[in-house]
Amino acid sequence: MGHRLPRDERISTHCGLVARSFGTEGIILSGEKDQGLLDSIKRITNKWGGPFEVKYEKNWKKVIKEFKSKGYYIILLTMYGINLPNIIDKIRKKTNLLVIIGSEKIPGEVYDLCDAQIAVGNQPHSEIAALSIFLDWYQEGRELKKDFCGKIKVIPQEKGKKTEEN
Amino acid sequence: MGHRLPRDERISTHCGLVARSFGTEGIILSGEKDQGLLDSIKRITNKWGGPFEVKYEKNWKKVIKEFKSKGYYIILLTMYGINLPNIIDKIRKKTNLLVIIGSEKIPGEVYDLCDAQIAVGNQPHSEIAALSIFLDWYQEGRELKKDFCGKIKVIPQEKGKKTEEN
Repeated sequence: MGHRLPRDERISTHCGLVARSFGTEGIILSGEKDQGLLDSIKRITNKWGGPFEVKYEKNWKKVIKEFKSKGYYIILLTMYGINLPNIIDKIRKKTNLLVIIGSEKIPGEVYDLCDAQIAVGNQPHSEIAALSIFLDWYQEGRELKKDFCGKIKVIPQEKGKKTEEN
Repeated sequence: MGHRLPRDERISTHCGLVARSFGTEGIILSGEKDQGLLDSIKRITNKWGGPFEVKYEKNWKKVIKEFKSKGYYIILLTMYGINLPNIIDKIRKKTNLLVIIGSEKIPGEVYDLCDAQIAVGNQPHSEIAALSIFLDWYQEGRELKKDFCGKIKVIPQEKGKKTEEN
């Protein structure tokens, strides 16, 4: 939420790449429209594997209400919420999640619309870190073993770099 | 490593804040000198609690060699390394770590100097995510319960924001 140009270009790209590589189905960007950002995440998905949906939606309220009406559980990641270790068992029971992240300036209304607000440590750090840790705890690390079947993949090395193209 | 102005300002700030809030002792920034970045991380440490050391060192090779000679175990986080779940047990036995992160352009020499190169999932995403997940796995989540005794702290809420000043 609240993507700003050019300030958030790289931060939002990292958010998109984390969402993809940590096993979510897609990301919906809101705030200022940034076609370059959408294209860059799509390019990486195309090369490294999916499926992963990337889209833009100006009206974030519509998105939240839509997902809510489909039965999704709405989570706001914010440093002011319940600390992750104290709420994760409850969240793991929910199957379909919409996870909201953004910069400091999340509108007050989002706090009302979400089902849970969750903090990753109650300290100021990074929405990228919050998203990755949340997704890792929710999936208990399984996301790191996901096979993406992309056009290219890394062959893990003790030293140096090796990739393989399919 | 390899901080570039203005491109990396926010990314490197997030890296510093993650290092602090995930329980490390400090961060050493290398690349282009950026006093504003150092000051901004120090300001947050001053307000939210420490101790957390922030400094700049142009000569990254000197830093690595210094820590190596003090017996630190040197880790490079890179998507090309051994996937975290396959190496974490070995790493948890090491007490003092120097963790290196940077953008795509890590010089080849770093690959030679490090003791282990570790990937968080072997997919392209974010050095911020990689650092946070690595620190979380290494500490088995204990870092999220750390008390920082800062001038300000969050009182976790189910809805809305609450902080307390000491």
